[in-house]
Amino acid sequence: TAPLVIGERSFGSRLVMGTGGATSMATLEKALVASGTELTTVAMRRFGPTGRESLFALLERLGIHALPNTAGCYTARDAVLTAELAREALETDWVKLEVIADEDTLLPDPVELARAAEDLVGRGFVVLAYTNDDPALARRLEDLGVAAVMPAGAPIGTGLGILNPHNIGLIVSRASVPVILDAGVGTASDACLAMELGCDAVLLATAVTRAQDPVGMATAMRYAVEAGFRARHAGRIPRRTLALASSPLEGMIAGSREEDAL
Amino acid sequence: TAPLVIGERSFGSRLVMGTGGATSMATLEKALVASGTELTTVAMRRFGPTGRESLFALLERLGIHALPNTAGCYTARDAVLTAELAREALETDWVKLEVIADEDTLLPDPVELARAAEDLVGRGFVVLAYTNDDPALARRLEDLGVAAVMPAGAPIGTGLGILNPHNIGLIVSRASVPVILDAGVGTASDACLAMELGCDAVLLATAVTRAQDPVGMATAMRYAVEAGFRARHAGRIPRRTLALASSPLEGMIAGSREEDAL
Amino acid sequence: TAPLVIGERSFGSRLVMGTGGATSMATLEKALVASGTELTTVAMRRFGPTGRESLFALLERLGIHALPNTAGCYTARDAVLTAELAREALETDWVKLEVIADEDTLLPDPVELARAAEDLVGRGFVVLAYTNDDPALARRLEDLGVAAVMPAGAPIGTGLGILNPHNIGLIVSRASVPVILDAGVGTASDACLAMELGCDAVLLATAVTRAQDPVGMATAMRYAVEAGFRARHAGRIPRRTLALASSPLEGMIAGSREEDAL
Amino acid sequence: TAPLVIGERSFGSRLVMGTGGATSMATLEKALVASGTELTTVAMRRFGPTGRESLFALLERLGIHALPNTAGCYTARDAVLTAELAREALETDWVKLEVIADEDTLLPDPVELARAAEDLVGRGFVVLAYTNDDPALARRLEDLGVAAVMPAGAPIGTGLGILNPHNIGLIVSRASVPVILDAGVGTASDACLAMELGCDAVLLATAVTRAQDPVGMATAMRYAVEAGFRARHAGRIPRRTLALASSPLEGMIAGSREEDAL
Repeated sequence: TAPLVIGERSFGSRLVMGTGGATSMATLEKALVASGTELTTVAMRRFGPTGRESLFALLERLGIHALPNTAGCYTARDAVLTAELAREALETDWVKLEVIADEDTLLPDPVELARAAEDLVGRGFVVLAYTNDDPALARRLEDLGVAAVMPAGAPIGTGLGILNPHNIGLIVSRASVPVILDAGVGTASDACLAMELGCDAVLLATAVTRAQDPVGMATAMRYAVEAGFRARHAGRIPRRTLALASSPLEGMIAGSREEDAL
Repeated sequence: TAPLVIGERSFGSRLVMGTGGATSMATLEKALVASGTELTTVAMRRFGPTGRESLFALLERLGIHALPNTAGCYTARDAVLTAELAREALETDWVKLEVIADEDTLLPDPVELARAAEDLVGRGFVVLAYTNDDPALARRLEDLGVAAVMPAGAPIGTGLGILNPHNIGLIVSRASVPVILDAGVGTASDACLAMELGCDAVLLATAVTRAQDPVGMATAMRYAVEAGFRARHAGRIPRRTLALASSPLEGMIAGSREEDAL
Repeated sequence: TAPLVIGERSFGSRLVMGTGGATSMATLEKALVASGTELTTVAMRRFGPTGRESLFALLERLGIHALPNTAGCYTARDAVLTAELAREALETDWVKLEVIADEDTLLPDPVELARAAEDLVGRGFVVLAYTNDDPALARRLEDLGVAAVMPAGAPIGTGLGILNPHNIGLIVSRASVPVILDAGVGTASDACLAMELGCDAVLLATAVTRAQDPVGMATAMRYAVEAGFRARHAGRIPRRTLALASSPLEGMIAGSREEDAL
Repeated sequence: TAPLVIGERSFGSRLVMGTGGATSMATLEKALVASGTELTTVAMRRFGPTGRESLFALLERLGIHALPNTAGCYTARDAVLTAELAREALETDWVKLEVIADEDTLLPDPVELARAAEDLVGRGFVVLAYTNDDPALARRLEDLGVAAVMPAGAPIGTGLGILNPHNIGLIVSRASVPVILDAGVGTASDACLAMELGCDAVLLATAVTRAQDPVGMATAMRYAVEAGFRARHAGRIPRRTLALASSPLEGMIAGSREEDAL
């Protein structure tokens, strides 16, 4: 599999993990290892200093890049502040930008999101922008200079999969930066489909951390992303309305050429 | 992964391959190896003796069980005759039973199918029955003694995926023999979904043999089946209408317990 | 709207009603009137003599043809017996044939269904056959001489709509007798879609009788069937991947031809 | 049917028509009449003076309110200018606001849209805002004071129907102004579904004007909107996984109560 390149970094895994919803450090560690992830988000506003430190220590020990996010921010101003704090604390210019509109949907506020993206790019951040599945907003974010657009398949934590594959396909077809499906994944086939639609990577958290068997699901997701990526590049058969026999039967009884055997 | 048990045999792989549509022996060999399959169907009525021999030799060399099928049969009588010929030629009691209704859909004729299944079971065959996605017919076939029911996701060669996941789920929930999704798979997420619905294995041919890169697609399918099987058993999160934050934000600023970190 | 022709009869309405699930005679009467139906099924095995008589009296008063059905029959033999009883009691050769496989799905048993259809046609019945959505079985029933095939959109009473529109479309495209979507309809858009797929009529019962407002839903269904029939014949626009402006904007500023105005 | 109330006006029809794509004034007139619409959009930037006049004359003659739209505007500034021109020309404060992001999708630019909505509301316009299907943006537009939100089912002219029913349902459940499904409708069942999801009205143009028989499709759409509205309010049956007999068969043989008859 070709590496995933975002900004100037390159990743062997196309599965980005979140840590939210995990029930213990021990299980989280096993799930992260099973997932094969090389990039994991950390909510800057979610932890006390102790919790944060132990999570960073875990990621460092596992050789996983920590990607701070601005979860819990409802305005561009808050998101920029949080990103600056993360830059200082973690010595990284990378930030996963989230600017949420309301608690019920946790969907991004498009106006504040665009504002924050513009500001952060101007401040030299490498911005990975969590967005809805709107192709127009994705294009605008790319024009503003984000390093990756991260459309939601469905609202965070719903496990509804990809509600609008058509829009995800449109976003992919028009993007020149990586597209990372973010939010909505509930099971492996959702992640697989995201990759088949042309996404460059998949980000998920609760689908793994809240599964009955987080480690088993993390393994499933690793395989699913791999499967979808390979299927996308292997060139699938076209869809047909009527059946097509695997191979024609006529004139094959006495065939002797190698092709007849297949 | 737990082995797939059909009748008295056990298989490490849950991907059953067909050979139809392959364009060369060399590519077929590579694709079969990449798929990891341990069970591959061979159309008894499709080959001249030369072609058949070279295909059997290939499967034997690769350590893959050859499963003769009755593709091209339109009546119970023809299917039973073909199965008997296969038993004699291949010294196996196993047969994948296909009794086709017409060329446009290649869907099974339910009446002739049931008749053939009953006859073959009476003759001591281990019958893996290709059927439509009708839960009532699947139940009847099981009552007749087949070793596995193989519902179509969509007509053969269409690549339409699983047209009726509800019915596949019903078949699985009522079956006490293995259920193998057969026909319709177009890409990896289709195979993954089949396993998540509870199928015990997936059979596919043209999705691999007619893909632009058959070997790449074979690898994708191997991963997809693995992903779906593991996801099924890992216990996915429930679907929700509204969003669920990965973890609550309240009261976490000063948290010091390990759970706060997640 | 062109009339629906089944056998030698012609109907102005393309909505066939069932009576099951109704909670009172008075509400049923209003719902039947609101639906505009001219053909309504009656379960021969479901009633005591009193109930049956009052239902027939109602239908006669409303000028609605009573179509006896064989609901509750699990074998061809029972279905034929029930049809003969109905013929004697109602002096009609028409019968809606149902041969059920099991209580959980209420789906037809394909083998017993085909057997009963053949027998009843031989006995001179006009057979409207309730079937699953299998194109092969639908074809076989037509070859056996049924006057209409009635594929299920989904199991009876589930309200799941049309689980497999592809199969319903296949059945329609291959049929030369009327196709009546039967079972599964939950709401108006399901009935509308059935007609757009090319069905000649829709049969439903619980979607109306168990709705919170049966009369309101009956009216909705009447409109929905009409809408779908007209849309089918009006020739819908093709589906497109990208947008198409309602009309091009270029060069229109100074336009003066009538076409420019639109 | 209860009237549709937008701002201080009330409409007997819940079908809003566009005129784009019509091929002649005569056909357009017949289609408008057949649709029963009382509100029809007119693209202010699309016509030369002659064309516009004849269209307005037609609408006036038919007693249909003309709703000027800002189709073809790519910035808030252009949209506001166009709205002001319309106000002067048509002596109406009503405007359907469109601010398009790009020609390929004709989807709204969320940032410019919000800006234009705020500006126009401040200028005293009654703003009906064409938006994407993003629940967060719909909420923001409502907070800015628009009189109706008009989410796209799919990109304009695609005929893809409602790509994301979940989002349309979310928008409806959170809105306190009318929600009008706008764009994407291809056939009658799409319009019916929109109403069942709880939309207060449906706007469509090319689905009618570019149909093979525009007048037939206009009639179909009128019925479909009526069907969906009534079905919504009639309280549909719940969806079930397993079948439910229309009425139980047990103990009915000798039944004599009225209920037994149904």
